[in-house]
Amino acid sequence: MELNDMIMVSVDDHVCEPPDMWEKHLPAKWKDQAPRLVNTNGADIWSYDGKVMPNVGVNAVAGRVPEEYGMEPTALDQMRPGAYNVDARVDDMNASGVLGSICFASAPGFVGQLWNITKDKDLALAVVRAYNDWHIDEWCGKHPGRFIPLSLPVMWDTQLGADEIRRCAKKGCYAVSLPDNPIALGYKSFHDSSWEPIWQVCNEENITICLHIGSGTQVNLQDMNGPAEILISSLPITLHNVATELVFSEFIRKYDNLKFALTEGGTGWVPYFMERADYTYEHHHRWTKLDLGKGRLPSDIFREHILACFIDDKVGIHNRDFIGIDNMAWEADYPHSDTTWPHTAEKFWKSIEGQGMTDEEIDKLTYQNAMKWFNYDPFKHLPREQCTVGALREKGKHVDTALVSHGRGLAPSDYAKGYATIEDIVKQMGQALTTVAIRK
Amino acid sequence: MELNDMIMVSVDDHVCEPPDMWEKHLPAKWKDQAPRLVNTNGADIWSYDGKVMPNVGVNAVAGRVPEEYGMEPTALDQMRPGAYNVDARVDDMNASGVLGSICFASAPGFVGQLWNITKDKDLALAVVRAYNDWHIDEWCGKHPGRFIPLSLPVMWDTQLGADEIRRCAKKGCYAVSLPDNPIALGYKSFHDSSWEPIWQVCNEENITICLHIGSGTQVNLQDMNGPAEILISSLPITLHNVATELVFSEFIRKYDNLKFALTEGGTGWVPYFMERADYTYEHHHRWTKLDLGKGRLPSDIFREHILACFIDDKVGIHNRDFIGIDNMAWEADYPHSDTTWPHTAEKFWKSIEGQGMTDEEIDKLTYQNAMKWFNYDPFKHLPREQCTVGALREKGKHVDTALVSHGRGLAPSDYAKGYATIEDIVKQMGQALTTVAIRK
Repeated sequence: MELNDMIMVSVDDHVCEPPDMWEKHLPAKWKDQAPRLVNTNGADIWSYDGKVMPNVGVNAVAGRVPEEYGMEPTALDQMRPGAYNVDARVDDMNASGVLGSICFASAPGFVGQLWNITKDKDLALAVVRAYNDWHIDEWCGKHPGRFIPLSLPVMWDTQLGADEIRRCAKKGCYAVSLPDNPIALGYKSFHDSSWEPIWQVCNEENITICLHIGSGTQVNLQDMNGPAEILISSLPITLHNVATELVFSEFIRKYDNLKFALTEGGTGWVPYFMERADYTYEHHHRWTKLDLGKGRLPSDIFREHILACFIDDKVGIHNRDFIGIDNMAWEADYPHSDTTWPHTAEKFWKSIEGQGMTDEEIDKLTYQNAMKWFNYDPFKHLPREQCTVGALREKGKHVDTALVSHGRGLAPSDYAKGYATIEDIVKQMGQALTTVAIRK
Repeated sequence: MELNDMIMVSVDDHVCEPPDMWEKHLPAKWKDQAPRLVNTNGADIWSYDGKVMPNVGVNAVAGRVPEEYGMEPTALDQMRPGAYNVDARVDDMNASGVLGSICFASAPGFVGQLWNITKDKDLALAVVRAYNDWHIDEWCGKHPGRFIPLSLPVMWDTQLGADEIRRCAKKGCYAVSLPDNPIALGYKSFHDSSWEPIWQVCNEENITICLHIGSGTQVNLQDMNGPAEILISSLPITLHNVATELVFSEFIRKYDNLKFALTEGGTGWVPYFMERADYTYEHHHRWTKLDLGKGRLPSDIFREHILACFIDDKVGIHNRDFIGIDNMAWEADYPHSDTTWPHTAEKFWKSIEGQGMTDEEIDKLTYQNAMKWFNYDPFKHLPREQCTVGALREKGKHVDTALVSHGRGLAPSDYAKGYATIEDIVKQMGQALTTVAIRK
């Protein structure tokens, strides 16, 4: 296989919600209370339920020169239109050779956490539904075969939550975004029986639950004055936590078809995780009396239920036989700062270089696992030969992917310590980083 | 090489302090205030400074039948004498073929945290010094060549702390135990300049700083009602946190000879860690302005300064070329429940099976890295041919290693949920698990 022959489906990207999204989807009764994008002193700010979200597109920096990555866009015109306009997004996908994409929410948080805390629960439900309708029908619906829809959850009432997942499934949405640690958002832990209605409907309707980094588990940090890289580097491994909770949990063994994606968690740590979990179980179950059933080990449960998602992960690919090639899927993370766009295909290609990958293995990582885990079939809508990196790039060759500068890069002397600290970037990102805290 | 030809030095074991340890080492003035072991209702309890430590040997379960591992020994007579008696310890080391050992403290915590919070700082200093004298002169001194001494730190005053490290170095002690996250114990973060005296003396005196799991960074958990395995499985990866703090820190680049051991952290996650840290740095340093100097990547800094220590880690060994064979060292964790004793040599041998290890690589993992990183030379005291697994086992063949039962195993029905939860084991372990907390 050559680079241009690959078919690439990203299981993790982001959409910055466009201002007009509420008009068609929120019932008339609630229109006055819809989230509203207002421009104040050059910044576009979402305002809703007495709260403001300081950044319209937190970390939506794709296409900028790297010297300016830390400077958050505060208005739509500071981003690539692909961040919020679906036609431009498809152009950017074409230009980088990406066929399909799962797009996580921005303004409300990855799991709609900001709307879930609305006091008027009728309004909250209307807002979540309107969001899901917009996301499924408009954002994903306009270009059939190009997106894997992902619904936001209702978490304050898991029976209502199950109903909403079923409603979205009827519209062809087979993924839902849940927090990787619900107690961080004030909900019960996944071990609590209140989540059963959600597990049941996901099991029945063949829904994969996406657990995105930063949606719950806190990053372990010593000092807000440490270099920013400590925070950035530490984010993906937070999903080690939920992986452990899942493989030892009671509920996962009750539902054969319950599936979780560890979004942006990487894969390189998974072989270690499996070995440690298996060692723990084999070494201790005789006194803990835990019985995973059917002679299974924690690693078996992982392989039956969990998909590990990665941006650029040579070590994980090298260790694919420890993980299981069916449990890994590639992602692009457009338009966030960790993205490989527009060189997504080249970066992936480089990470498999010299690793003895068969074509079958490459296909699983780049699109077939995404198809299987998310009930997604782009070839119903698009002929296969039009879906390759080469064919899509041909279609997108009018797209200007040159990096642009907004003239806002900082010098070392602009930072108190000569480099960006965690404190500096938390200030820049504002409320987005709710999971960062120093613990004593 | 054959199993019996290996030389095995464990860089992580534990000592349960014997009751008579204070008599010779605490100055007369403080004798009345010495920690005291009192037997109450069949339990041996350390009492000191108005505080009691409920378990004399938390988790000192080596030699028990696995069905009883969760049941903490509460009196010395429930443990193998090797836990607290150095002659019996050497017998147990011989029986399993282990030549050398680093022994972490039990009653005061891995970093002497209980004595560091003593209000009377003169008493605290006397107690820490007496502990170090006992540990170096008696515990390690009685059998030359068999132990690598490890001092407890003075943390409330880092200048005093540096003096104590230097005093111990003069006595031949080249390791000190520090918390992997000092803020958890109420001290400043490692990024704070107050630690400089400690870094300086360790750099000058060639001291390796041991950071043991459970000495600071909290375990991420969702629910105390989850299975106990979630906590046990999640402990070692907590050192991912301090590894990140170290490789990006300013201070580590100031001292060429500053060395850290990640005790009981495992090695399987290190290749992922290095790749992620390097990706973060390469992808972001143009805007963060962090400069690691000399063209170095975070993985280079790891290899220059950090030793990863593992009990049983096939994945880590498989990936030794990603980590660096010079940065890995084996450990036995006697007498804790994760230990491989008495089958330590067999377990290690099994983990290297089929991995194409050269004799040179095996030697580095089993003893040469321990010698190098800890300034330890057993062959000054013992002829090399008496140091192999085979020779030591011959010496220790009178030792009875048969597993014993204390008749206290629990049935599933003894647990409210049919299996041990995190709450159940936290209750059993009492104050020992100070780093376990559910976070909202």
